[in-house]
Amino acid sequence: MNKEYPSAALERAVGEFAKLPGIGRKTALRLVLHLLSKPEEEVSTFGRVFSTLKQDIRYCKVCHNISDTDTCAICANPKRDSSTICVVENVQDVLAVESTMQFNGLYHVLGGVISPMDGVGPQDLQIASLVDRVSEGGISEVILALSPTMEGDTTNFFISRKLQPLGVKLSVIARGVAVGNNLEYADEVSLGRSIQDRTPLK
Amino acid sequence: MNKEYPSAALERAVGEFAKLPGIGRKTALRLVLHLLSKPEEEVSTFGRVFSTLKQDIRYCKVCHNISDTDTCAICANPKRDSSTICVVENVQDVLAVESTMQFNGLYHVLGGVISPMDGVGPQDLQIASLVDRVSEGGISEVILALSPTMEGDTTNFFISRKLQPLGVKLSVIARGVAVGNNLEYADEVSLGRSIQDRTPLK
Repeated sequence: MNKEYPSAALERAVGEFAKLPGIGRKTALRLVLHLLSKPEEEVSTFGRVFSTLKQDIRYCKVCHNISDTDTCAICANPKRDSSTICVVENVQDVLAVESTMQFNGLYHVLGGVISPMDGVGPQDLQIASLVDRVSEGGISEVILALSPTMEGDTTNFFISRKLQPLGVKLSVIARGVAVGNNLEYADEVSLGRSIQDRTPLK
Repeated sequence: MNKEYPSAALERAVGEFAKLPGIGRKTALRLVLHLLSKPEEEVSTFGRVFSTLKQDIRYCKVCHNISDTDTCAICANPKRDSSTICVVENVQDVLAVESTMQFNGLYHVLGGVISPMDGVGPQDLQIASLVDRVSEGGISEVILALSPTMEGDTTNFFISRKLQPLGVKLSVIARGVAVGNNLEYADEVSLGRSIQDRTPLK
């Protein structure tokens, strides 16, 4: 039912929503009609928030996480261990690691992983600034917490080659069976990794 | 992870997306980060389309469907049978009926159904204008094509009481088993209806 929309304005709005990941044209139409059922003020606020989004959002100068201030709340917190850096892909991953409450160091947000298929090379990511940060000294360990995918592994490898000459301790988050899952449902690769990387019983 | 967002601008954008039906805060964050990865121009276009959406969208004066012109393309089409009106809930339903290619009359878009739970009464819908349209004459049949739900039935009943005194032929779309489904999977109510409303074999 692509070209059948009775209005160009409707078509435009549906088209904008349908560009978003995971939103098809049917869902997009539903969202537009939902907005149309709301008061004019609410809808124009919705639009205004996004029309200035790119200008409103700023990034921490140290870790490149999204922040309202030049230095984000985590980097500015004196209680955090500034000698450990956890390298993550994006903001969601910072939130995910924070919610474990197992990490008290600082972050470095790459903004993605190396992915030749999507045309993302090392120069598109915050890798040079990570190397600078480590070169400046005061960092004892860098933890690589990227997704356990081919792209994540490629990025891990690239970063480790850049950081090894600087003599900093490098580690990767553990891969193995997920906690709470039955062993019989674990995939072979994860199970294999969990045997290779077994840890001594305490 | 509600209050943990590192930025008020991010929080605001996520909040706006999360107001939409079927979009939770996690999906909203993913959508916002997707927008942030796009060029500034593209994101501000996205915002602009919605900030003027309510002003841009107009409605057909005859059938109240969304339209760019005062009278929509369907109402203005001389090849359509202007003596039959199909009453539907919203724009999606116009598209759904159109895609069957089984109807060549005009529409009347109510803008919803009577739903006391959601605070929608008859005065919030385009029912008075439907009565006016039929009163003006020239209409031989009104087909009620609302959802087969309690709210749809209530609305059917309300409209039929208003239109019956005008002497117009009234009908409701058939309810029964869905075409292509195995009978054993049909729900009892639909199957029961399909027996009650059986049609003679041609």
